[in-house]
Amino acid sequence: MDVVGLVVKLGSAIAEETALRVARAFESHGVRVLVEESVSYESLSSYPRFSLRGSVPGKLVVVGGDGTLLRTLLKLQDETPIIMGIRAGKRGFLLDVEKYEVEDRIRDFIRGDYKLVVYPRYAVYANGERLACILNDVAVVSKMAKLTRLNVLVDGYPAMRVDGDGVVVSSTVGSTAYSLSAGGPIVDPRLDVLIVTPLNPVQLHLRPLVVPSHSRVEASITPQSNEAYLNLDGQIVRELQPGSLVAITRCDAGVRMVRFRWWDNFYERLYTRLLAYW
Amino acid sequence: MDVVGLVVKLGSAIAEETALRVARAFESHGVRVLVEESVSYESLSSYPRFSLRGSVPGKLVVVGGDGTLLRTLLKLQDETPIIMGIRAGKRGFLLDVEKYEVEDRIRDFIRGDYKLVVYPRYAVYANGERLACILNDVAVVSKMAKLTRLNVLVDGYPAMRVDGDGVVVSSTVGSTAYSLSAGGPIVDPRLDVLIVTPLNPVQLHLRPLVVPSHSRVEASITPQSNEAYLNLDGQIVRELQPGSLVAITRCDAGVRMVRFRWWDNFYERLYTRLLAYW
Amino acid sequence: MDVVGLVVKLGSAIAEETALRVARAFESHGVRVLVEESVSYESLSSYPRFSLRGSVPGKLVVVGGDGTLLRTLLKLQDETPIIMGIRAGKRGFLLDVEKYEVEDRIRDFIRGDYKLVVYPRYAVYANGERLACILNDVAVVSKMAKLTRLNVLVDGYPAMRVDGDGVVVSSTVGSTAYSLSAGGPIVDPRLDVLIVTPLNPVQLHLRPLVVPSHSRVEASITPQSNEAYLNLDGQIVRELQPGSLVAITRCDAGVRMVRFRWWDNFYERLYTRLLAYW
Amino acid sequence: MDVVGLVVKLGSAIAEETALRVARAFESHGVRVLVEESVSYESLSSYPRFSLRGSVPGKLVVVGGDGTLLRTLLKLQDETPIIMGIRAGKRGFLLDVEKYEVEDRIRDFIRGDYKLVVYPRYAVYANGERLACILNDVAVVSKMAKLTRLNVLVDGYPAMRVDGDGVVVSSTVGSTAYSLSAGGPIVDPRLDVLIVTPLNPVQLHLRPLVVPSHSRVEASITPQSNEAYLNLDGQIVRELQPGSLVAITRCDAGVRMVRFRWWDNFYERLYTRLLAYW
Repeated sequence: MDVVGLVVKLGSAIAEETALRVARAFESHGVRVLVEESVSYESLSSYPRFSLRGSVPGKLVVVGGDGTLLRTLLKLQDETPIIMGIRAGKRGFLLDVEKYEVEDRIRDFIRGDYKLVVYPRYAVYANGERLACILNDVAVVSKMAKLTRLNVLVDGYPAMRVDGDGVVVSSTVGSTAYSLSAGGPIVDPRLDVLIVTPLNPVQLHLRPLVVPSHSRVEASITPQSNEAYLNLDGQIVRELQPGSLVAITRCDAGVRMVRFRWWDNFYERLYTRLLAYW
Repeated sequence: MDVVGLVVKLGSAIAEETALRVARAFESHGVRVLVEESVSYESLSSYPRFSLRGSVPGKLVVVGGDGTLLRTLLKLQDETPIIMGIRAGKRGFLLDVEKYEVEDRIRDFIRGDYKLVVYPRYAVYANGERLACILNDVAVVSKMAKLTRLNVLVDGYPAMRVDGDGVVVSSTVGSTAYSLSAGGPIVDPRLDVLIVTPLNPVQLHLRPLVVPSHSRVEASITPQSNEAYLNLDGQIVRELQPGSLVAITRCDAGVRMVRFRWWDNFYERLYTRLLAYW
Repeated sequence: MDVVGLVVKLGSAIAEETALRVARAFESHGVRVLVEESVSYESLSSYPRFSLRGSVPGKLVVVGGDGTLLRTLLKLQDETPIIMGIRAGKRGFLLDVEKYEVEDRIRDFIRGDYKLVVYPRYAVYANGERLACILNDVAVVSKMAKLTRLNVLVDGYPAMRVDGDGVVVSSTVGSTAYSLSAGGPIVDPRLDVLIVTPLNPVQLHLRPLVVPSHSRVEASITPQSNEAYLNLDGQIVRELQPGSLVAITRCDAGVRMVRFRWWDNFYERLYTRLLAYW
Repeated sequence: MDVVGLVVKLGSAIAEETALRVARAFESHGVRVLVEESVSYESLSSYPRFSLRGSVPGKLVVVGGDGTLLRTLLKLQDETPIIMGIRAGKRGFLLDVEKYEVEDRIRDFIRGDYKLVVYPRYAVYANGERLACILNDVAVVSKMAKLTRLNVLVDGYPAMRVDGDGVVVSSTVGSTAYSLSAGGPIVDPRLDVLIVTPLNPVQLHLRPLVVPSHSRVEASITPQSNEAYLNLDGQIVRELQPGSLVAITRCDAGVRMVRFRWWDNFYERLYTRLLAYW
């Protein structure tokens, strides 16, 4: 490893401090460190910069929470660097490395002593325009709490009519995020599926729906609906007019994440984090 | 009955036509008709006007859907006219009279041949300021799909911590509206309660909570929360900053609705309308 | 106080030990102790006996868990002694006194230094025969996992058709017991209602239903149903043939429980105990 | 096709009449008809017999409801005949042919004009003993409504602790049966998964879990539990003592069902049948 890119959560003293340790650890192994251009911490100001929209190093370290990782991935186009995630915040389901072990895991990373796990991403289209690839979920959500009316189609077949707060379509990885709060099932990380969960629908008989990963899932907002928002991995990216069509299909390139532990602790991690919310 | 005020749903040919029949029926019994000032239908333009914010006739007829009634009530301050509701639209759980029977029921109304049902209203305060009285529900909902964090207090005691899309506090009457879609129970119309239902909370163990009608229910948005919206009977009325406090208490004056049928068909009406949504 | 009756959970060393402390504490205040006839602990064998089916002392102390209290109440006919509950087991939502404070609370009890809380009981009839009064819940449940088909009527009006594992009708007090696991809401202890919750129904649009405490709730098992069981406060008491009718109405006499703390810690107690189950 | 076996629902005039039409249709094409030995209808008494436990014809026709098919499959050991299902009853999600088209579909069956769909079956073990292969679901359910306590393990990892009415483990095909009533998701028929759904658990944070089809799912009943029942495809087959272990693994041989229509109408069929239950 010659060079590594460093992406850091903004406005967090813990993230700044952790990122500095990360940079120094890589340097101590002779690896050159580039810092993502929006990072404005004083302590990291001397490092050369790179842009997520430009030429991205083949190996990235993301320091922060799940949100930091998700926002980073949304900006990456068809680039697919290998990513190591370091948790510097309360929530970090996707991030594997804890602060206390930063130096050890960086050594393992450089040595190649890890598993590479590929998570599928899904391309999202609004009215035919390709917007981005998501990792966790796509949601069509009500704007200003006005009823959204839409039909969900799976490979062209009508699967669900929703009048309510919208719908969330989640990947396996995203099944423990927003989809779970909205009533979706927990999905074993070895499976590769999409979960379609209606949001507070008037249609009380609706249940979450699990479909194959290679399905084309569409949310067709009816002409009678109010305007809605399109939410990609937690970011509102667009307003959707009545009559809009959102389509979700599998991307060619997934996300390659470095894992030092694997799913053997999936359920333990899951419940521990879920119940820590009380 | 000397005079009646007429409130009509906007932009609906069916509502306009029905309202005209209503006006003529009252006139045929010698009752003077005033039309609410925002009604702009050509066919009703010759009637004298009144304002919901001004001097309101003691008897009102609302023609439209539940939304029309709810918006009318939000505008009424401490005025409590007797209200007859006529359904002119797909949904109208609160409105008792169907189009086909308009003339017969107006005759009954004038004769006093009806039951007067009083529905409680609840005053809503934001940071100490009294905003309005609601009939159905108050919701604190996420703005732009960003996590809302809040504590629900019942008479000062912490009852629920919600990190999610917010919370809806519903009256008995509102129990079959948004609260039901969000997972709340159906409440018999003879009961007088408030239902507190969390919206897609991260805290998976939470369940809807039913409390006495005279309780003081508060939603205290934490300083760490994102901004949220305050939704009164389906209308967004205000943006809520982190640290805001929303309080709900029973109003002195309820809504007096004219009923020609009573609850003997509550469940039948309920399921018929719920299942008509498929 | 001259005399107190003592009911003790069977087969529990902790209950035995606690009961002995209870007996001695009462004796030290000059109160005569009678022990319920089914209690077979050696250490309590010298006390005179009484029968729950016979002449019951006006004051009872129940040592055990919620199940001990519920079974005791089921046996009491129209007798309504004042009851103090002492928790000697893992679960005890209904029981107010912890082991460590036995002597102090018994002193308070004798002095009259407590609140008397009256919980309503509900009489249960099967095909017209009055069976018992329940405190928590009545359930019609499938026998051997065979589909139960029934209609729920509220004051004679059809309210719910259930094809599934049956239905549970719960009091306010019972709302945090079986009803909650089955999807029912949490009900504030100051309210007085019945909650009707379907058990795993084929009818996916069904939701829990909250009705007034004075309602007559009936479960009418259809002729096409399989046989079912009738469960009163957790005890199977009867097999129900297809065509059976179970009716629930409020009892005249409620349960008078001694409370040293009151509802100010209801929600805290609730979540603490619920989440202790992980 | 030389010979076909005929299995018929018992005690149903519609099933008897349909079966007779089926037998005559096969005979009119020169196919010999054997009737399953437990079928006692007078009109079919002249046909030679076969046993599901003995030598089973390579092609079977099942006339009845889903229950008839499921009970037939439970009796088949490692035999895997090709099965055509004809619906003669209210419910028949698994059965493809309606009564009105019996003769046409039998002609197609003989000609080979159909799709063969293979549904996985799952072997169920109780305390190491292999009991049977199921198609829809395995449930551990409470006996006489007494709390069942169990741990669910997925490939040896603890995934769920349930104190309640038990747990249901469902195949994809079974996802629209008991699992759905118990809160499980709907699963697209092209997916191959197991769904683990807790039944009315005290642990309110639990959610249904979707795991790969090749997983080993175990339900380990704790020593502190009450006795429970083991339910295979709707049939109680065994009582389970505290400490018992139930294991579920994929069978080598699936069920080969004849399909004349395929999944293009899956969602339409689903909602039509679900909502017909109101």
